[in-house]
Amino acid sequence: MQLGMIGLGKMGGNMKRRLQGAGHEVIGYDLNPAGADVDSLGALVEQLEAPRVVWVMVPAGEPTRATVFELAELLEPGDIVVEGGNSRFSDDAANAEVLAKRGIGYVDAGVSGGVWGYDNGYALMVGGEETHVRFLKPIFDSLIPEGGYGFVHAGGVGAGHYAKMIHNGIEYGMMAAYAEGYELLEASEYIDNPAEVIKSWRGGTVVRSWLLDLLDRALDADPSLEAFQGKAQDSGEGRWTVDEAVRLGVPAHVITASLFARFASRQDDAPAMKAIQALRNQFGGHNSPER
Amino acid sequence: MQLGMIGLGKMGGNMKRRLQGAGHEVIGYDLNPAGADVDSLGALVEQLEAPRVVWVMVPAGEPTRATVFELAELLEPGDIVVEGGNSRFSDDAANAEVLAKRGIGYVDAGVSGGVWGYDNGYALMVGGEETHVRFLKPIFDSLIPEGGYGFVHAGGVGAGHYAKMIHNGIEYGMMAAYAEGYELLEASEYIDNPAEVIKSWRGGTVVRSWLLDLLDRALDADPSLEAFQGKAQDSGEGRWTVDEAVRLGVPAHVITASLFARFASRQDDAPAMKAIQALRNQFGGHNSPER
Amino acid sequence: MQLGMIGLGKMGGNMKRRLQGAGHEVIGYDLNPAGADVDSLGALVEQLEAPRVVWVMVPAGEPTRATVFELAELLEPGDIVVEGGNSRFSDDAANAEVLAKRGIGYVDAGVSGGVWGYDNGYALMVGGEETHVRFLKPIFDSLIPEGGYGFVHAGGVGAGHYAKMIHNGIEYGMMAAYAEGYELLEASEYIDNPAEVIKSWRGGTVVRSWLLDLLDRALDADPSLEAFQGKAQDSGEGRWTVDEAVRLGVPAHVITASLFARFASRQDDAPAMKAIQALRNQFGGHNSPER
Amino acid sequence: MQLGMIGLGKMGGNMKRRLQGAGHEVIGYDLNPAGADVDSLGALVEQLEAPRVVWVMVPAGEPTRATVFELAELLEPGDIVVEGGNSRFSDDAANAEVLAKRGIGYVDAGVSGGVWGYDNGYALMVGGEETHVRFLKPIFDSLIPEGGYGFVHAGGVGAGHYAKMIHNGIEYGMMAAYAEGYELLEASEYIDNPAEVIKSWRGGTVVRSWLLDLLDRALDADPSLEAFQGKAQDSGEGRWTVDEAVRLGVPAHVITASLFARFASRQDDAPAMKAIQALRNQFGGHNSPER
Repeated sequence: MQLGMIGLGKMGGNMKRRLQGAGHEVIGYDLNPAGADVDSLGALVEQLEAPRVVWVMVPAGEPTRATVFELAELLEPGDIVVEGGNSRFSDDAANAEVLAKRGIGYVDAGVSGGVWGYDNGYALMVGGEETHVRFLKPIFDSLIPEGGYGFVHAGGVGAGHYAKMIHNGIEYGMMAAYAEGYELLEASEYIDNPAEVIKSWRGGTVVRSWLLDLLDRALDADPSLEAFQGKAQDSGEGRWTVDEAVRLGVPAHVITASLFARFASRQDDAPAMKAIQALRNQFGGHNSPER
Repeated sequence: MQLGMIGLGKMGGNMKRRLQGAGHEVIGYDLNPAGADVDSLGALVEQLEAPRVVWVMVPAGEPTRATVFELAELLEPGDIVVEGGNSRFSDDAANAEVLAKRGIGYVDAGVSGGVWGYDNGYALMVGGEETHVRFLKPIFDSLIPEGGYGFVHAGGVGAGHYAKMIHNGIEYGMMAAYAEGYELLEASEYIDNPAEVIKSWRGGTVVRSWLLDLLDRALDADPSLEAFQGKAQDSGEGRWTVDEAVRLGVPAHVITASLFARFASRQDDAPAMKAIQALRNQFGGHNSPER
Repeated sequence: MQLGMIGLGKMGGNMKRRLQGAGHEVIGYDLNPAGADVDSLGALVEQLEAPRVVWVMVPAGEPTRATVFELAELLEPGDIVVEGGNSRFSDDAANAEVLAKRGIGYVDAGVSGGVWGYDNGYALMVGGEETHVRFLKPIFDSLIPEGGYGFVHAGGVGAGHYAKMIHNGIEYGMMAAYAEGYELLEASEYIDNPAEVIKSWRGGTVVRSWLLDLLDRALDADPSLEAFQGKAQDSGEGRWTVDEAVRLGVPAHVITASLFARFASRQDDAPAMKAIQALRNQFGGHNSPER
Repeated sequence: MQLGMIGLGKMGGNMKRRLQGAGHEVIGYDLNPAGADVDSLGALVEQLEAPRVVWVMVPAGEPTRATVFELAELLEPGDIVVEGGNSRFSDDAANAEVLAKRGIGYVDAGVSGGVWGYDNGYALMVGGEETHVRFLKPIFDSLIPEGGYGFVHAGGVGAGHYAKMIHNGIEYGMMAAYAEGYELLEASEYIDNPAEVIKSWRGGTVVRSWLLDLLDRALDADPSLEAFQGKAQDSGEGRWTVDEAVRLGVPAHVITASLFARFASRQDDAPAMKAIQALRNQFGGHNSPER
């Protein structure tokens, strides 16, 4: 098939290459002209034959929104936009609506796989109308891994980003579980070499996983993780997952605690902890603090 | 009544003064001879008339254990030891047993009130036999606040320290609730002056409490809590409460989270958080971390 | 002063009575004509002398919004609306804007005190312009408790509801701390009578508070709390507090855990827990579950 | 090699078969004579040639302790006992000591793999002296999976059970992360078929793992998990992991929350939640609960 790819960064660029390797014709556009095949959205649309498929792979938020709205002006009825960025699921309805007014289809796609996706394939979670998803199937099939997994049509518009958000929420929890276990191994006088324990778990255990493989890989390269500061960043999906837990009344203790632990790790002198110390001081000094 | 007080630190010293103010005769002993009335445990026991009451108010753990075991040698059948330190409830059975073999009574007392106790009275939670507790009643009555609250005979040996432990576990949770609320007020662009909000809550609200009064007092003295580092210490009771939650199968999410938040506040570069950053790095760099 | 009170339910009705007791003239309106002084918003506005003060005390969300928007049509420049419902702070900007277009002032007020407020006074947290707040001061002064606490002008429009939201978030955490402690006392073989321990804590302890007084009161009336099911409800403020913690990057472990524990208490057969049991079953049956 | 296997249940029986398949001579003993090769511990010891290897695979706690102590009487200097049960790491020192007095070696082995271990191999985490571990290597090599992972000599006596405990703690956290994600998918109006989303994640995603494969397998067999009640059991390791987090000052928010969520799931009418409802009632009834 033929498609346009907007955004040729680490994700979009690799996906273009993977699609081309599978025989698809991909015309790429990026704000950065190096590596782009055309120099404007208009030129991209012109080069594609109707019905056009345009995959948007730019930063979430305003850049994505602006791109979709511009495409609404440039594309024609029957064309389809795939929004594959890390967008909040709640952004999709507005995107779909502005395109639908012009008769243009919209599919949101949560994409997982990172830098490993080019070789291993990308997991795709998509939302939108059945006819649109069916039409895009050859593209999806070339992106996903071999083995029959890695693709789901999760529901209507927004469901793709929704499923990806939950995927990332789970990932936060899993990462924290491994991280806490690692810290316990590090802290305990019983364990001689935490990294060897981690490595051994890659076979035969209940906790074996791709994440564990990566942790072992990181420890091979840097046994004490000296290159890393103990300040964990977070991106949007973990926060949105907690928002959804609150909205839906789901007691997501674990995913939320994993997010908050990242927050706390970035604090040097948290007001909350100063308040606790101030209270302890009020009781009667540091030596009999909680009497 | 007449009693011996062993340990004349911030707690024991003030309790001695309060008891004396109420007309009791208190003979004090401390490793530090300044302020002590006698220079040995033996001398203390000698000065007391049978049946003797000896209140032990020394650091928990080995110092308390050693004192009780020495008293088992020195005291006589019919005497009573009150153990008022911050001991783990599980230490009490052994103390009681070694004394019981000599016919000596044992009462454990959890004491709350800190430096405010001398003026306001101390809350007492005691465990032991009814006859022993009844005999000690005049002493207890002089220590507790006016108003009819502040005393409970919570159960058999160990129950006093147990109730005090749970009291402190609750305190951890309450302090964390206030501390988190304070941090949210500090962080929000909506609130002009968090300290004024805290102060206002002292009247008419659902969250008014003695702890809130202390927080307001601390903020009056130091509106940004600059004197305090955001590293919260913990003493034994919070940990023991979590141990008990685990043993009893009680989902003490809040008390435990408040303890762990203190742990985390003292970490600069936690191995767990380094592991999370290492994993994020494995996915493909800092810019598309959780893809 | 003279003011109109819209909404004469448990809160508005009592506040009207308290204000009248302090010498203010209060004209009340309610959808329920019983007890109302006028039969329409229009009639209410007509009876008030300019500059008018109208206090809106109706359910949060659509009823409040509709009332404010209707008042925007009925009131005149220089009048002031006080919105005292349990509204989300983020609703206030829109209310203020629609009124400001007509030259009408807007103050949001978080009100605490429940059924006890009539006698004890209400705590008020208000947001809005200094001139509006100053004008309303005589009304506020009559509502708050004696003693100098219970009132704060927390910031601009929205700050009143914001401060009230955080107040309630703290309240969730405190309630959970007491509740967990109570459950531990109930579960432990060490404690003979949990209710007596709770009662004793009302004096001299670090955990004494109005909430503890209420818990003791509840236990006096029903020592095993038999009248209550272990399914805890929640209203909006706890959820909004967690949303804010997520937005602001504040690790509010305790407040969030207290909310989620309420969620979990209402679930009989949570999908999450079914999933855990299904996984345990996959390992090899119930007897060696986590091998 | 030759060894004795004590305990021929789901784990011990399969391990015996796997070892025999690899050419080892295994003499089995079990309280249940069916399937046992000998009818007493004494007979087992008699049939083994010195230096003997005896693998104990019986329930943790008293049965394991009694077996080890009995073996201390029966075995000879130079023999080795492997303790492969789900024992607490803190039990190992006493076992090792009683054997060491007789010159008998002791190795503790945490075993993972469940019913899948016979086919896939078992993960082994062992603790003890290097010479003992080296001697046992041929046995370990036959038990572990192909591929080079699945074995670690984690440290001295106790380290094997310690590493296994942390493994299970991590497992609790991972299971909860998946379970919460699954419940969110179930609860959301965006997702048409949660089970299909789960299945798709088996390829290309960051969350792919053996546990996820099992969850998909369970959902294939029972798409709504109807066969399972939402009451999650727990065994010792999760609790011991939390105990260790408390002892070591490690903020294991996630692992602990996953344990407590299981506790809560088994409660119908938790005293804590009754207390919260009682407090809400004190404020002024169900309709304005947190005012």
